Amino acid sequence: MIDLRSDTVTRPSEGMRRAMATATVGDDVYGEDPTVNRLEAVVAERLGKEAALFVPSGVMANQIALHVLTRPGDEVIVEQGSHIFNYESGAPALLSGVQLRPVPGAGGRLSADDVTAALRPTGAVFPVTRLVCLENTANKAGGRIYTVDRIQRIANAARAHDLRLHLDGARLWNASVATGTPEHAFAAPFDTVWVALSKGLGAPVGSVLAGSADRMARARRVRKQLGGGMRQSGILAAAGLYALEHQYEQLATDHANARWLAERLADLPGVALDPATVETNIIICDVPGRDAAALAEQTAADDVHITPFGPETLRITLHRDVDRAMLKRAWPVLKTHLGRAA
Amino acid sequence: MIDLRSDTVTRPSEGMRRAMATATVGDDVYGEDPTVNRLEAVVAERLGKEAALFVPSGVMANQIALHVLTRPGDEVIVEQGSHIFNYESGAPALLSGVQLRPVPGAGGRLSADDVTAALRPTGAVFPVTRLVCLENTANKAGGRIYTVDRIQRIANAARAHDLRLHLDGARLWNASVATGTPEHAFAAPFDTVWVALSKGLGAPVGSVLAGSADRMARARRVRKQLGGGMRQSGILAAAGLYALEHQYEQLATDHANARWLAERLADLPGVALDPATVETNIIICDVPGRDAAALAEQTAADDVHITPFGPETLRITLHRDVDRAMLKRAWPVLKTHLGRAA
Amino acid sequence: MIDLRSDTVTRPSEGMRRAMATATVGDDVYGEDPTVNRLEAVVAERLGKEAALFVPSGVMANQIALHVLTRPGDEVIVEQGSHIFNYESGAPALLSGVQLRPVPGAGGRLSADDVTAALRPTGAVFPVTRLVCLENTANKAGGRIYTVDRIQRIANAARAHDLRLHLDGARLWNASVATGTPEHAFAAPFDTVWVALSKGLGAPVGSVLAGSADRMARARRVRKQLGGGMRQSGILAAAGLYALEHQYEQLATDHANARWLAERLADLPGVALDPATVETNIIICDVPGRDAAALAEQTAADDVHITPFGPETLRITLHRDVDRAMLKRAWPVLKTHLGRAA
Amino acid sequence: MIDLRSDTVTRPSEGMRRAMATATVGDDVYGEDPTVNRLEAVVAERLGKEAALFVPSGVMANQIALHVLTRPGDEVIVEQGSHIFNYESGAPALLSGVQLRPVPGAGGRLSADDVTAALRPTGAVFPVTRLVCLENTANKAGGRIYTVDRIQRIANAARAHDLRLHLDGARLWNASVATGTPEHAFAAPFDTVWVALSKGLGAPVGSVLAGSADRMARARRVRKQLGGGMRQSGILAAAGLYALEHQYEQLATDHANARWLAERLADLPGVALDPATVETNIIICDVPGRDAAALAEQTAADDVHITPFGPETLRITLHRDVDRAMLKRAWPVLKTHLGRAA
Repeated sequence: MIDLRSDTVTRPSEGMRRAMATATVGDDVYGEDPTVNRLEAVVAERLGKEAALFVPSGVMANQIALHVLTRPGDEVIVEQGSHIFNYESGAPALLSGVQLRPVPGAGGRLSADDVTAALRPTGAVFPVTRLVCLENTANKAGGRIYTVDRIQRIANAARAHDLRLHLDGARLWNASVATGTPEHAFAAPFDTVWVALSKGLGAPVGSVLAGSADRMARARRVRKQLGGGMRQSGILAAAGLYALEHQYEQLATDHANARWLAERLADLPGVALDPATVETNIIICDVPGRDAAALAEQTAADDVHITPFGPETLRITLHRDVDRAMLKRAWPVLKTHLGRAA
Repeated sequence: MIDLRSDTVTRPSEGMRRAMATATVGDDVYGEDPTVNRLEAVVAERLGKEAALFVPSGVMANQIALHVLTRPGDEVIVEQGSHIFNYESGAPALLSGVQLRPVPGAGGRLSADDVTAALRPTGAVFPVTRLVCLENTANKAGGRIYTVDRIQRIANAARAHDLRLHLDGARLWNASVATGTPEHAFAAPFDTVWVALSKGLGAPVGSVLAGSADRMARARRVRKQLGGGMRQSGILAAAGLYALEHQYEQLATDHANARWLAERLADLPGVALDPATVETNIIICDVPGRDAAALAEQTAADDVHITPFGPETLRITLHRDVDRAMLKRAWPVLKTHLGRAA
Repeated sequence: MIDLRSDTVTRPSEGMRRAMATATVGDDVYGEDPTVNRLEAVVAERLGKEAALFVPSGVMANQIALHVLTRPGDEVIVEQGSHIFNYESGAPALLSGVQLRPVPGAGGRLSADDVTAALRPTGAVFPVTRLVCLENTANKAGGRIYTVDRIQRIANAARAHDLRLHLDGARLWNASVATGTPEHAFAAPFDTVWVALSKGLGAPVGSVLAGSADRMARARRVRKQLGGGMRQSGILAAAGLYALEHQYEQLATDHANARWLAERLADLPGVALDPATVETNIIICDVPGRDAAALAEQTAADDVHITPFGPETLRITLHRDVDRAMLKRAWPVLKTHLGRAA
Repeated sequence: MIDLRSDTVTRPSEGMRRAMATATVGDDVYGEDPTVNRLEAVVAERLGKEAALFVPSGVMANQIALHVLTRPGDEVIVEQGSHIFNYESGAPALLSGVQLRPVPGAGGRLSADDVTAALRPTGAVFPVTRLVCLENTANKAGGRIYTVDRIQRIANAARAHDLRLHLDGARLWNASVATGTPEHAFAAPFDTVWVALSKGLGAPVGSVLAGSADRMARARRVRKQLGGGMRQSGILAAAGLYALEHQYEQLATDHANARWLAERLADLPGVALDPATVETNIIICDVPGRDAAALAEQTAADDVHITPFGPETLRITLHRDVDRAMLKRAWPVLKTHLGRAA
């Protein structure tokens, strides 16, 4: 099986398994797990923030940040394709009582003008616009990158109206590897930011949320309320530390593989894709006039798994468990099924 | 002062004041106010529903309906200009934990296809699409009407996917008067519907929510939780009953006045308005290249009050407290200030 | 019918009806109702607070205060018989996400020691104790009064731990009339306080919440979110102003009537009541070994209505619509049915 | 260090580490982790329920169950010492909008009569009593057991009023080992029940919630919303399966150790403890007139760690990482510091 559905399917490597098996652990609810504490310190430094918090998922990282940065009834500006609006099961309203304002951004990414245009007037009948959330890379836009410059312009527009800023950095590592810009440069304008250990990096479980010490203290309480306080979670943190040390460089290979495939897909009749938009490890392409779900079933029957991402849209994601050789085996299958016009 | 900002500014007439002053009342929290009970029965029958509930505002009517028809985490489809999304201060997320999905409808009104396209796939990561809310007339679309036929097609699409339906009927009376279609025909496809007594009808306070007896029993509890249970509210209900009996026909005059003014405004240089879109008592027109808020201040200085409804958009609302003679006095003021190109 | 169930059943007097019929009104959602504005100013001054807000019910006053003074997940200390815990349909958890900590107070009233003992330790596993709510008079304790001295000791204990304080003053007027202490002296230690117009004072609808200007600005938004923003509510405010001016003194008569009846009830076999505990207009007495609900049905059959308030407990409430002559007619009925041992 | 603070501090054994290092894993958000699937099947069967769900913590298990079994505004009956009321940071109100009704049970455990007495009357002003939660063993009561017979009587009382039932089984394994009653017999009367892998059983992370297939499908969505969906969580599930197979019997030893220590503590002057109440692995004893926190600091200085559990109350918890030899070394320390009257 060649699994190109998501980079979340990556499995722990042998070295990572050894790191987990030999991790020193304690009770993290008491703050006594040395491996968790070390991971939090490492990530906080890497993101240029005062403090960090290990959480079991990216959804929880997003939801804790929303909770800490808002009050019930507030409005939050997000791009309409954002993970928060589309793939978190309505949690922002459920857990924080906030209203999302989904805005269509050009190429799936917001601009400073988009943010300014979405601000609410003052007055008790309007929600209070409180927060802007960006996602870098933007998954539904095909893993595209918000540059530091673009982020800064958005942040300036937001700060001019006293808004707060949160970064969903599920694939921030990819943005950093692809651009050579360190993570802390991307993270600097944000109040809170999180990164995933369980996607391209290949750890089995976990994300890390970072921000000011005060906010992370509040985040720790919210993590407890959501049921994200774990005990000897150093087992998982050890995998994250191993990934950062040994598996981070792999992301560049994933990007090269994505480009290799994108260039080929773009030449297929029946596939609409500009390979220049493939900036990291995700390919999103249209198959006009055809049923994406049916196509995904056809390739799956030949053991190549991809994700229908809209009625006529497919997502193909590269990651460490699919190397170039496997990709070359996948290519004829993709070519056969996708390479026909409707 | 000629107040064209909203039909909410209408004041009780002398007859209505007498009706309030002589109303028989009781304690409605005990269900013992005969005037409230009568108003609820009258409106339930008029809307063709089993039961009804008097509430202090249209916002509360909408919020109770959302609460009764959803569970926290659900998603609700609304037109992007809807009152629920724009003018209720984020209450749906705060009070019911639901996520709104604002959809742009052609001419400010949803179609059946819009609803179908906004449905979420199944799967735990997606919110559950549970409810469609329509607003008839659609305030932000300029008081335009959803016809019974259009509603029925939307309802068919919604029911095919087990969705529920709610009607924000803040100005349903206007739709009915303008089309000659009885209110119950508009209301029939909906689980819940409410109408306002305090807008064009001219009562000082109150709206009435209607639906099945079971749902209204639950609504009564939610009203208590929100603090909408009142005591001798027959004073207010008496005004509503009076309005239905004596002030309903006035709405036709408001519509005629709106058309009279719209035809003149459409001829002004600097005003963009198709008078054919003015179906009831609301005129929404653009003033391209000019600052709507500044224009509204200018007319106000000449004692004619209108509402800036966007950076270059104005709303002018007709109602029973502005008769044709007053409107004729307002016209030169509007002409002077609005009738110049940018 | 002699209705001793509650002081909420009071109906508007002739003078009050005239005041409503002639009230000057405007659109209060725009802040333009002069009568509402005057009522808010009058009550704010009377309670010694910067600002005030008219709301349709006491439940809404309590719920807005809870919302403004807490964050979701906080804990609120209340006496176990408090209205907030028992008669607001679970609204504090629903609307504000707060946990109530119901504490049994001696004689139905909390002490400073009760508050200190209920504080949570620090640490993310514990709720944050944020707020203490008192109810003066304490309805379920039989309308008993928190003295200013007792309140001050509780406030000192609370402030020593950075807690906030809210006063449910549904019957604060009664406490004031009974003790000769002005309302502002009772209100001074609290962040927020509200008073009812619709109980002993006899207005048909409405309560007024007061506090700092900042908090009342936030409260105004929350009122909108809950659906408590009304339009020409000056009609109702006029009744409140009339009540304060003309019907306030009546409360002393209600208290005298309550004492008159309490002394007689205390002598009945089968009734357990210490008349010294009847400090205002409420009598709560036990009928050991008998079914309170059945007794209330028996007196109702003879047209005297009282409230079962527990399996073997009854509440009898005096108010302006039952004068001494009516009470003398009620007495033989009460004597007949209550005056037998089990 | 001899750590008697909690059984949550247990660390993975060598065998357990090997099981984790060699676990077969997949992406559990896609339902594809075979080890998680096996753990869920094993626990569901053991608890006699249709389905089960792996979650990162016991708090999340409780909160998901509360969410699935209630609606916002409902009331939930709990014993006043329950974990849900005291150690989950106000989450029930925050996440599910429910009001807890904490009831003092004799010996820290509810009876059927307690439940019946706590029911609310019907009527919109009262919260709806919806759910009873029990905790077996009852941590704050000193690990005492609800027998199947007592549970059945409570369940009968609850079902007679259409209440639902949830079991916090954080230490249900201990109840089962101590009584010889299988877990499914304890679990049968409940709609939902969860068990911990990370306490006495010694796994690093995780709990398993069980119930009907329908409810567990809803629970899976709520887990996603709370951020409890994890990826290759088979690593953690493998530890749980190992624990059930190899470390379950150990609980009997913990109980014997607790009794050994309890008998000695009961003889100390200055310690109030009835050793007959020590039914499982937890000892809760009073130290009248002395400061429990200070005593815990004194024993900690001698490397024996216990938990202050009230101003004059201590908790000592036995578990697999403290064997009889270590306990014999801890005893003189405890004797020295605790064995003096105030």
